[in-house]
Amino acid sequence: MKEIYLDHAATNPVHPEVLQAMLPYYREHFGNPLSMYDPGIKAREAIENAREQTASLINSKPKEIIFTSSGAESNNFALKGIALANQNRGKHIIVSKIEHHSILNSARFLEKSGFVVTYLPVDKNGLVDPAAVKKAIIKETILVSILHASPEIGTIESVAEIGEITKQKGIIFHTDAVASTGSIPVDVNALNIDLLTCAAHQFYGPKGAGALFIKEGVRIVPLIYGGIQENGRRAGTENVPAIVGMGKAAELAKRDLQKRMNHIKSLRDKFISNALKTEKVFLTGHPEQRLPGHASLVVEYIEGESMLLMLAAKGIYAASGSACSSKALKSSPVLLSIGIPTHLAQGSVVFTLGEGTNEKEIDYLNESFPQIIKRLREISPYSKGWEGTEDPTCIVSK
Amino acid sequence: MKEIYLDHAATNPVHPEVLQAMLPYYREHFGNPLSMYDPGIKAREAIENAREQTASLINSKPKEIIFTSSGAESNNFALKGIALANQNRGKHIIVSKIEHHSILNSARFLEKSGFVVTYLPVDKNGLVDPAAVKKAIIKETILVSILHASPEIGTIESVAEIGEITKQKGIIFHTDAVASTGSIPVDVNALNIDLLTCAAHQFYGPKGAGALFIKEGVRIVPLIYGGIQENGRRAGTENVPAIVGMGKAAELAKRDLQKRMNHIKSLRDKFISNALKTEKVFLTGHPEQRLPGHASLVVEYIEGESMLLMLAAKGIYAASGSACSSKALKSSPVLLSIGIPTHLAQGSVVFTLGEGTNEKEIDYLNESFPQIIKRLREISPYSKGWEGTEDPTCIVSK
Repeated sequence: MKEIYLDHAATNPVHPEVLQAMLPYYREHFGNPLSMYDPGIKAREAIENAREQTASLINSKPKEIIFTSSGAESNNFALKGIALANQNRGKHIIVSKIEHHSILNSARFLEKSGFVVTYLPVDKNGLVDPAAVKKAIIKETILVSILHASPEIGTIESVAEIGEITKQKGIIFHTDAVASTGSIPVDVNALNIDLLTCAAHQFYGPKGAGALFIKEGVRIVPLIYGGIQENGRRAGTENVPAIVGMGKAAELAKRDLQKRMNHIKSLRDKFISNALKTEKVFLTGHPEQRLPGHASLVVEYIEGESMLLMLAAKGIYAASGSACSSKALKSSPVLLSIGIPTHLAQGSVVFTLGEGTNEKEIDYLNESFPQIIKRLREISPYSKGWEGTEDPTCIVSK
Repeated sequence: MKEIYLDHAATNPVHPEVLQAMLPYYREHFGNPLSMYDPGIKAREAIENAREQTASLINSKPKEIIFTSSGAESNNFALKGIALANQNRGKHIIVSKIEHHSILNSARFLEKSGFVVTYLPVDKNGLVDPAAVKKAIIKETILVSILHASPEIGTIESVAEIGEITKQKGIIFHTDAVASTGSIPVDVNALNIDLLTCAAHQFYGPKGAGALFIKEGVRIVPLIYGGIQENGRRAGTENVPAIVGMGKAAELAKRDLQKRMNHIKSLRDKFISNALKTEKVFLTGHPEQRLPGHASLVVEYIEGESMLLMLAAKGIYAASGSACSSKALKSSPVLLSIGIPTHLAQGSVVFTLGEGTNEKEIDYLNESFPQIIKRLREISPYSKGWEGTEDPTCIVSK
């Protein structure tokens, strides 16, 4: 059976060149980067090279990059670290309702320590209104954290505009750019941000490597205390091979960004326009301001889980909601936030394309997906004697 | 030039079998373990297999193992997580003065949040007195954290006895077993512990993989919030290859433990007995109750850093103090804690052997080390007109 992987938002295979770059650091240059002798020095130099490569991808200074173990760690570090370091100035934080769990749950943790958090709503396309951010800012606000792009609905937020506001107000601005970094241009200066989270496995780097960009001069309390690694901001023996892999993946992402974007966007558009031909299939998220390889749909009368199983039976691997909620089998809070009714949110399916996705795979998907919908609707109890929902205004119609 | 790596306490190369076990998970079985389709399921199964292998090494239940990114993360998680989850019962914590920075700095962080920390002294051999732990326990004590073995002076603490006391008192007991797990037998039941930190790269597993054993029923607050990974206790897309590597390394460590111990202990003893023949060279740490491959020395009249450079010039890679303090160029707080005078502590050098260390390497070391001491003493300003320190009582004499 052919296998067609269309869940690139969940994770990605490591690029062959990335793995090649990593391999010497497992056995040959395995030294501890803090050591004074040659194998340690080689490891240290490799880390600093990766720091330059990663910084270059997001247009930061190398010393503004702190390597972590994941996007989740970076998000926890950013929220808790900024909150603790700046609580003398105020205890109010602003996030959106469609942040990743690592942001939302860190915010809830901070609420237990006396912080007040404003959870901003989004519009029907999943956009946070910059004016709403401005309005939510009070004297005690110390941090705004708004995601750059949603892995669930693909919407790219107006981060630069939000950053313009926080800059004027002198408030620290963090963006979770896990879904965007390496997929679309990310420039920390153009976006007016102070902190940015990214994860290597989202752009063909290894799992176990993330980064937090911290603008020079921003004070932060470490999440992981210990030795002097990462300039005292993130302790623990460095995961040298993974960091090297992240650097190499960043280099490739920078080099190939436009090519990758063009490639997957045209295939994605071909799929979406075909998928929407089937009755009661709707696109979620912003119709244009979205990640290039991202196609998120809701299909009426059908459970997302059933679609995933049928798709998998045909060798097509997709997701329903986020990777983290796939297993939880609940309606996606993100879909509910953009006003999708519960019964439609249950029929969520997300296809995310990658650089290896090809035309033949999309043709196969275009052939299979409507068949699966047809078959599932035939056996669905919901589809009997039900006229169907009118295209709700909250949903981008065909 | 031959290269002789004698800094196994700092880090280790990945075992070839470990790397082989990891490789399929970079590109072939790269799926997100939370996914419902085949590549995700394969990754999930691999993690559960690694959990069993890791649990088996320390005689815990698999579900008591939480994978983290490092020993430092596990230590931060244990201290802060237990403190936050149990603060309603009291805010007093007991640690030793010779804990790793990740413990000491987490303790200092907690002090800022209103916790009170008792830092227990150690004797001249680096041993924490179990009776002192008992004495330090008050009504408000919620946690005792004592390292299992010191990476700097090799001393193995009387953890089982301390655990007996905490068990009787109903107090949670954590041990930092980064230096011991995989090097000597570690049995969480025999040691009476509730939480244990270990790191894969200490036993020929990869960097970027650690674990925290949390005894069933012990409540803990996560350090990294987010998705439902690791049973909701540690979020972030799992570093599947590294976790697989940790499991494989644990399996090998369990299988080869006695063989490895015997091998490196006999070579280590051969080196120590030769090293102590040189005047004013002293062993630090416990003479018998110590890690099998660990030889920590102080050499009077000489700077540790100079020794490391001269050794490195001969292709011998060793450490001075811990990996983390090597670069900091300060007197090791651990050495000062066991009563080594400052001028002697400056002359610290630590050789740690590994399973690849062979007799020829030790012969070469035995030939080179006294020559280096002789040469450095000839040029040392300290050695002129100074009669030398009498063997201080704090030091294990020859």
